[in-house]
Amino acid sequence: MKKLVIFGVGLIGGSVALALKKAKHTVQIIGVGRSADSLQTALDLGVIDVATSDVTTAVRDADIILIAAPVAQTPAILAAIKPHLTVSTVITDAGSTKGDVLRCAKEILGAQFNQFVGGHPIAGAEKSGVTAAMADLYINKNIVLTPTPATDTQALQRVKALWQACGANVSEMSAATHDGIFAAVSHLPHLLAFALVDDIASRPNAEQLFGFAASGFRDFTRIAGSHPEMWRDISLANRTALLDELDAYQQELKHLQKLLQSEDGEGLEALFKRASIARNNWGESRKQTQ
Amino acid sequence: MKKLVIFGVGLIGGSVALALKKAKHTVQIIGVGRSADSLQTALDLGVIDVATSDVTTAVRDADIILIAAPVAQTPAILAAIKPHLTVSTVITDAGSTKGDVLRCAKEILGAQFNQFVGGHPIAGAEKSGVTAAMADLYINKNIVLTPTPATDTQALQRVKALWQACGANVSEMSAATHDGIFAAVSHLPHLLAFALVDDIASRPNAEQLFGFAASGFRDFTRIAGSHPEMWRDISLANRTALLDELDAYQQELKHLQKLLQSEDGEGLEALFKRASIARNNWGESRKQTQ
Repeated sequence: MKKLVIFGVGLIGGSVALALKKAKHTVQIIGVGRSADSLQTALDLGVIDVATSDVTTAVRDADIILIAAPVAQTPAILAAIKPHLTVSTVITDAGSTKGDVLRCAKEILGAQFNQFVGGHPIAGAEKSGVTAAMADLYINKNIVLTPTPATDTQALQRVKALWQACGANVSEMSAATHDGIFAAVSHLPHLLAFALVDDIASRPNAEQLFGFAASGFRDFTRIAGSHPEMWRDISLANRTALLDELDAYQQELKHLQKLLQSEDGEGLEALFKRASIARNNWGESRKQTQ
Repeated sequence: MKKLVIFGVGLIGGSVALALKKAKHTVQIIGVGRSADSLQTALDLGVIDVATSDVTTAVRDADIILIAAPVAQTPAILAAIKPHLTVSTVITDAGSTKGDVLRCAKEILGAQFNQFVGGHPIAGAEKSGVTAAMADLYINKNIVLTPTPATDTQALQRVKALWQACGANVSEMSAATHDGIFAAVSHLPHLLAFALVDDIASRPNAEQLFGFAASGFRDFTRIAGSHPEMWRDISLANRTALLDELDAYQQELKHLQKLLQSEDGEGLEALFKRASIARNNWGESRKQTQ
């Protein structure tokens, strides 16, 4: 790989660039973005080698095009690069949802859809933007790739190699499996945290409430500090799976509510115990693998 | 204060003892508990000076009795110490709920209810037990005391001084105000985290789901690793305020659900933005005060 083009040089795209530079990869990294200021910052920080808003120049001779902009921009970016792709240009993305991205890539890329590899790095931070980017963001983190039966094997291998060069563990699964998993373990928790903070912030005594919130609240709501535009896009893109999860969770809350209403101490303790054991086992297994 | 008796030498009670010892306080600390093993550990770790299961000996000449056992044990402990109290013994507790504790103390202590000061240290960790106790647990943490019009001023001052000696910031409010605040910022988040983990752990593909859960899930669910018996007791004790909070939260989720169902991107972004701004402002203000 001689030339990598990154659309959207923020936390995710910027960290890929920094990881490759740290690994002494000799690739040239071109940043393309909506904001000239943000691209200039990426240049100043040494994250990218070239900044441009000219898609034609950017895409010419690109080995891999990584779309790491907010997911709502993906269709426009695919449409803009389409006329400039060769038969060997590999296109991949870093969006948190995959079904919608594959549908859109298939529609826009047509015969060249086989050159597209859906990807999702499971790494992030509460801050966004290129100033939050870091070379170590992907070390030992999971990256999910969602090839389809149409996907070109070599394209898949090149995207896999890109992420492995960043230190990540790559797995492959269908887009539907991916979207179901992340609706449950990521998208729903984000919605729940946003909902709690919004609920509390809207009250007349919000200041007093926040004043006594402690470390449990801090950790529970950390993800409520996430990027609103990004989470709007994720929520809409994975709407169907997310609505299923929201429904399942509301059932679980109704069950909890009944246990409380009937003062069922045994039932409450059993539920808390199941959760506590599962959570602590997960925490232990994570420690061992990371 | 020459003699402090702690019922329940776990994370909370043990950390009070360690804080006083670190501050070179010359008080003698007596530990009383259900489990001989756990008391022996507290002795071995130098957390307490004397371990006993004999309430008569323990309470004799005690200046302050701190009840730091799981809240469900509070009535039995109050009944056990009652016959041994002098007119100057101060009794306090460290329970996470206060309305129920005050009602129970009034009923059991009768005329000596004025010697009881309800207290709640806003500090904790995901682990419980005396081995998790630490001298610095209360440094700059909030302690809420809930005196009533009947509370003896000197008793209140002595309990205040005890917590200040541990490095804590003491505030005073009514039990009802306390219980409303903590239902919102602590008890509800715990229930929500337990509910999410229980929901996920009960599924056939739980292992796969946990396998892709990342740092957002880790922080959101940290409090789901909390002590099941303790949270059963807290939930039941603050049932009324907690049911109100659960109701308000379910309304908020229904609102979110409607925004998703109608693909209302603007509405979703507005909600996420309100939450994100409030959460980040809170995080900043916390950094400045701690």
